[in-house]
Amino acid sequence: MDTSRRIESALDTAVAHAEAPGAPPRLAEAIRYAVFPGGHRIRPRLCLSVARACGDDDPAASDAAAAAIELLHCASLVHDDLPCFDDAPLRRGQPSVHAAFGAPLAVLTGDALIVLAFETLARGASRSSGRLAALVGLLARAAGAPNGIVAGQAWESEPTVALSEYQQAKTGALFAAATVTGAAAAGASALPWRLLGECLGEAYQVADDLRDVACRQEEVGKPVGRDATLGRPNAAALLGMGGAFARLKRLAREAVEVIPACPGADVLRAEIEAQTRLFLPASLARELA
Amino acid sequence: MDTSRRIESALDTAVAHAEAPGAPPRLAEAIRYAVFPGGHRIRPRLCLSVARACGDDDPAASDAAAAAIELLHCASLVHDDLPCFDDAPLRRGQPSVHAAFGAPLAVLTGDALIVLAFETLARGASRSSGRLAALVGLLARAAGAPNGIVAGQAWESEPTVALSEYQQAKTGALFAAATVTGAAAAGASALPWRLLGECLGEAYQVADDLRDVACRQEEVGKPVGRDATLGRPNAAALLGMGGAFARLKRLAREAVEVIPACPGADVLRAEIEAQTRLFLPASLARELA
Repeated sequence: MDTSRRIESALDTAVAHAEAPGAPPRLAEAIRYAVFPGGHRIRPRLCLSVARACGDDDPAASDAAAAAIELLHCASLVHDDLPCFDDAPLRRGQPSVHAAFGAPLAVLTGDALIVLAFETLARGASRSSGRLAALVGLLARAAGAPNGIVAGQAWESEPTVALSEYQQAKTGALFAAATVTGAAAAGASALPWRLLGECLGEAYQVADDLRDVACRQEEVGKPVGRDATLGRPNAAALLGMGGAFARLKRLAREAVEVIPACPGADVLRAEIEAQTRLFLPASLARELA
Repeated sequence: MDTSRRIESALDTAVAHAEAPGAPPRLAEAIRYAVFPGGHRIRPRLCLSVARACGDDDPAASDAAAAAIELLHCASLVHDDLPCFDDAPLRRGQPSVHAAFGAPLAVLTGDALIVLAFETLARGASRSSGRLAALVGLLARAAGAPNGIVAGQAWESEPTVALSEYQQAKTGALFAAATVTGAAAAGASALPWRLLGECLGEAYQVADDLRDVACRQEEVGKPVGRDATLGRPNAAALLGMGGAFARLKRLAREAVEVIPACPGADVLRAEIEAQTRLFLPASLARELA
């Protein structure tokens, strides 16, 4: 099945469980709203690409891993947009969850999505029982304290920010989770795949920084110029546009170089090159050529 | 090992993982603050009691289940106390997490605790791999949508509240989780144990309602009179004090009657009777005799 269809189907199945009879209707609505329509689904795509490169012998498990990562990503967006954090009125071109449903439901939607991520793993990876423990552990590491996305966000509440920990946790963690869980879901050793995820996560962060500085809100679907407003580090601000582009190119090259030996390495290399080009919108991608 | 020591030790081990090097210091502090010192640890005690009654052949798994339930319970308290919900300045006799650390860290602390609950299951129940899938599924059901504590809280944001769904989700879900995961952790069939948890959850809710109406803040460690202030249903308000006491006694008796056949039924019966008496502070418990 086509990758997009696998991802959307797995996510739809997961969300449908949360909407089962007895669910509070507005919460169920907010959960679906937070997941659909999606963005580029970069992280679940990466997860499935890695799983396929490793043989994908348990598609239910890799679908579950891909969906779980995207659900966690959506949860982080919902909480990040809250008034007490970025107070963003817009996300993916439509009102953010708190703007559409209020802050209380936005908090609960994020919570429900975190739970749903782990539930999805249990439903999909129960056949390969040894893999489930590995997948839950890897997802938890990418999500919580001390080094996951929640920790990444928490650095913004610290008096002193450890910059590299902050960026690795805030962005790198879920990209690393995508590659390691893709491998683990397919029964491959997870650790060798972490570096690929970290490189891509760093590349994505640079691209995100470039978008924040150089794009219009309509292009990216969310407020721009936020880093300057909120006093957050930004690669384009720190290195200049040219320096940031150079860094992005270097990281994309490095990512391809650190792909572990695997049956599907050639296809994976091509997929990663294609995906990395999509990190930037067309207006900026031309600069990358 | 003594039950209290097992629970505190399992929780300390779990929280220590979140505090590992690289963790944002204030987040790590807030996570520990949210878990220690605890309340009566009613839910993990119940979990271990049931596990023991079923033979407790994998103490690492039952410790993990008990700790996971308490971590979820702590997460729900942290989010419930947020300004956008109860806006409670006090919890367990000390400042609530948002009062002590601010709302942003309180949101993230709740998130981290949810993740930590699932991580704790994976760490402790990985030996009995089939049990891990069951435990993750049962915990997710108790925590998320459509029927877990997050859903319970979400009913307060609905225009029409389905009262019984609200109470079952808000309070019953974690008590039911305690009994079913205790059984599942010990390799027993989970479903027959659900009713015991639901009865005890309902009894606890009545006791909580009595405390809210009849006790002083110093006795219960959190603001009282909240149900009236926030317009929430309260058994003592609905049935009168006498009616609420009668209901509590009936539920406690019913709980003991629905204990499934198991090796340790006698001990469990005695433990449940003792625990139920602790649902109320001394000043009110006298009325129950």
